[in-house]
Amino acid sequence: MALSKEIGITVKKAKDLSEWYTQVVTKAELADYAPMKGFMILRPYGYSIWEKIREYLDRRLKETNHSNAYFPLLIPESYLKKEAEHFRGFTPEVFWVTHAGENQLSERLAVRPTSETIINEAYSRWVRSWRDLPILINLWNSVLRAEITATRPFIRTSEFLWQEGHTVHATKEDADKEVMMILEFYRQLVEEQMAIPVLLGYKSEKEKFVGALYTTTLEAMMPDGKAIQMGTSHNLGQNFSKSFEIKYLGKDEQTHYAWTTSWGASWRLISAMIMLHGDDKGLIVPPRIAPIQVVIIPIYYKTEDTGAITNKVKSTADRLTKAGIAVHADSREQYTPGWKFNEWELKGVPLRIEIGPKDVEKKQVTLVRRDNSQRHIVNDDAMLSDVQRCLEEIQTELFTRARSALNGSISETSDYDRFKDTLNDHGGFIRACWCGSPECEEAIKNDTGATIRTIPLRDEKPFSGCIHCGKAGAKVTYFAKSY
Amino acid sequence: MALSKEIGITVKKAKDLSEWYTQVVTKAELADYAPMKGFMILRPYGYSIWEKIREYLDRRLKETNHSNAYFPLLIPESYLKKEAEHFRGFTPEVFWVTHAGENQLSERLAVRPTSETIINEAYSRWVRSWRDLPILINLWNSVLRAEITATRPFIRTSEFLWQEGHTVHATKEDADKEVMMILEFYRQLVEEQMAIPVLLGYKSEKEKFVGALYTTTLEAMMPDGKAIQMGTSHNLGQNFSKSFEIKYLGKDEQTHYAWTTSWGASWRLISAMIMLHGDDKGLIVPPRIAPIQVVIIPIYYKTEDTGAITNKVKSTADRLTKAGIAVHADSREQYTPGWKFNEWELKGVPLRIEIGPKDVEKKQVTLVRRDNSQRHIVNDDAMLSDVQRCLEEIQTELFTRARSALNGSISETSDYDRFKDTLNDHGGFIRACWCGSPECEEAIKNDTGATIRTIPLRDEKPFSGCIHCGKAGAKVTYFAKSY
Repeated sequence: MALSKEIGITVKKAKDLSEWYTQVVTKAELADYAPMKGFMILRPYGYSIWEKIREYLDRRLKETNHSNAYFPLLIPESYLKKEAEHFRGFTPEVFWVTHAGENQLSERLAVRPTSETIINEAYSRWVRSWRDLPILINLWNSVLRAEITATRPFIRTSEFLWQEGHTVHATKEDADKEVMMILEFYRQLVEEQMAIPVLLGYKSEKEKFVGALYTTTLEAMMPDGKAIQMGTSHNLGQNFSKSFEIKYLGKDEQTHYAWTTSWGASWRLISAMIMLHGDDKGLIVPPRIAPIQVVIIPIYYKTEDTGAITNKVKSTADRLTKAGIAVHADSREQYTPGWKFNEWELKGVPLRIEIGPKDVEKKQVTLVRRDNSQRHIVNDDAMLSDVQRCLEEIQTELFTRARSALNGSISETSDYDRFKDTLNDHGGFIRACWCGSPECEEAIKNDTGATIRTIPLRDEKPFSGCIHCGKAGAKVTYFAKSY
Repeated sequence: MALSKEIGITVKKAKDLSEWYTQVVTKAELADYAPMKGFMILRPYGYSIWEKIREYLDRRLKETNHSNAYFPLLIPESYLKKEAEHFRGFTPEVFWVTHAGENQLSERLAVRPTSETIINEAYSRWVRSWRDLPILINLWNSVLRAEITATRPFIRTSEFLWQEGHTVHATKEDADKEVMMILEFYRQLVEEQMAIPVLLGYKSEKEKFVGALYTTTLEAMMPDGKAIQMGTSHNLGQNFSKSFEIKYLGKDEQTHYAWTTSWGASWRLISAMIMLHGDDKGLIVPPRIAPIQVVIIPIYYKTEDTGAITNKVKSTADRLTKAGIAVHADSREQYTPGWKFNEWELKGVPLRIEIGPKDVEKKQVTLVRRDNSQRHIVNDDAMLSDVQRCLEEIQTELFTRARSALNGSISETSDYDRFKDTLNDHGGFIRACWCGSPECEEAIKNDTGATIRTIPLRDEKPFSGCIHCGKAGAKVTYFAKSY
């Protein structure tokens, strides 16, 4: 039985992103494969990143009067069928429960693929009057959708953790506002906390959520030229309220169908963070989302140093903790400092503090940034402010670097051959004009594998006819291959 | 379509606890029935109480180096079968997934009834050396166990929210310590936060967790004389480590089977809180667990008062918020103060502050306690300290009252006829001596419906032979009917 484990990443990110990704996920102990094909175990370190995401979003939602609730995991087939398009969309992916113990159930139960149907049944009972509106409920749970294609941790798994919000409003305008407010929360989470720049916009009719009036999305670009969807926020119109009879008596004494929205973001966010910021040594976690922002590693040469170093490690950790910085002092005796450096670099802790005999003697500490390996020495007096400044700089620089990568990935073209060449060559977003027809959209997908990732929220000035059919009156649209 | 809803409780708690309970759960909007028999919707107010429970326990667990993680919902049947007793125990209650979309699965998947099997499979891969131990992981999730008998919200539902902890240790002593530490965390949660006094102790062989070496439990007593189990903490011995091959290389260079524990507490805690503290007006939530500790209700008589009252409501709320008190100002214009009093009493908010024109004029506020309806006026200067004192008093008095109810419910007897009469008459705990044989345990259950709720952690001095067979050398044991 081997005592040591191979912890380093053995492949270059630029050479084989896919293998690099798998190694980072498993070796940094973010996640592990489960015995059942398509399922993943979220390990403690990965879960602690998910907790940071959840805390941020939960706070924003509570500040705006959203409440959490819990709805059952199992949904009767007849409920899923109430919104016909929705049912057609999800049914190939549904896990079906047919037995409880030895007894066959009289009706099959779906393991929740999403909760619109079961929550709207309740809303139809809870909503009576305009006084009851809006209803703003969010669920933190897991959903299951059978994946037939190859699975990848965090990106494509048959079960994933997410939040799903479901709201009811009196008017379309109120529902529109909700959809856009949530999209903005997602943008702030993704760009400002996770340092991942995104394009915002609408999905096409073909790509929108099944059963929605319209879908808005956030799209990030990965280093291999493929886009990844970071969250979606849907105006469901009156489709579900009509299927589920969600009606209210208005101030006008008339009954009206309500307007509903739904929106979700999942642990997939973590996959983009890994791919975008990581390097050949492993993960780099942006400071604002890092469960451990600073790791302190004591460096002993002689036994007589131990006491003073241990004390300084403790007092440094205490100062940082008091200032609200998430710090971990790694005092394990069974590992060398070098081993610890590698482990915490692999896990992407943004800042390392080394404390050795010389640091004690000179009343200083040594700081090492994870993102660029820069090391510098700082006096004890200036330690706290320097750590704070470093963390802010890392956050900003990660975002700035990613922002220029995103901008650099966008190719604009009005020529379909160049469109195809670019996709074959290096991918990225293609900014092109599209006439709006599902036929052109389908043809482009068949020719190139690229889909419409997003149509800008505000129309951008078209610069050509449709990239596929050449027809005039086309809209600026972003295409890409995607995860 | 009716605009008003019947919000008051229409039955006395002392007269019909069961109907009273159902009305409180639904009318206080803690929970609602789901369309599928046996399932429950946890509504926002109920969820916010669950969040308070979770925050407390999560903090205690993290302080003691436990981490959260997530394990898959679906578990292959072959995994459940690995620990034979465990499988026999759970299999009648398991919901089985047999299809994904249109495809029949090659192996049935169980919807998690508990996660021992799937987590121990992972532990067998993660544990190599004594350096890897202990592993201390907790899961916040839901589990499903088909309920055949009548369901009651929070008490007996086919799906429930809970936490399940799973730990791996090098020695039995370490596992014992973990089991007892968790039991103590549960006791502090239940007694000190939720004001529910409990008896602690061991389960009998018959009542222990299937597959455990031993089970410890916390048992509370409800007003109808029935006990309710508030949490359990199990030492699983080496049963699971042998079934799943969880072995480590010790400092002695030998391989050893590890020792594992598991422990769980669920939303059932909320049911005991409802039944124990509630009264004919509805719920009473102990202040430390209350999502809203103080509700402020403005009382307008004339339009000209509005501005000054609104300002005072706001400044009072701000002062309380700054002091860390969870306060809600109910400024809805469509409801009268009287209507609001009823609603917040029904929802059990421990303290109400009324602010009317006279309160503005005299620089005072009026406080009303939920538990005993006492009202008193306090000067603005003393408001904050008075609110803090009131909340502490309510917490203490709820616990003290519940503690004497628990003590009063315990009947001691060495006479089996009296044992039976007491159970028929008013229930409660019966303190009696038992020889330890499963036959006597079974006979008592058949005769009376009572089971062994708990055997004290430290032996208490026996005062008779076995209550059933009269044999000497019996142990003091607590029996009761239970939920």
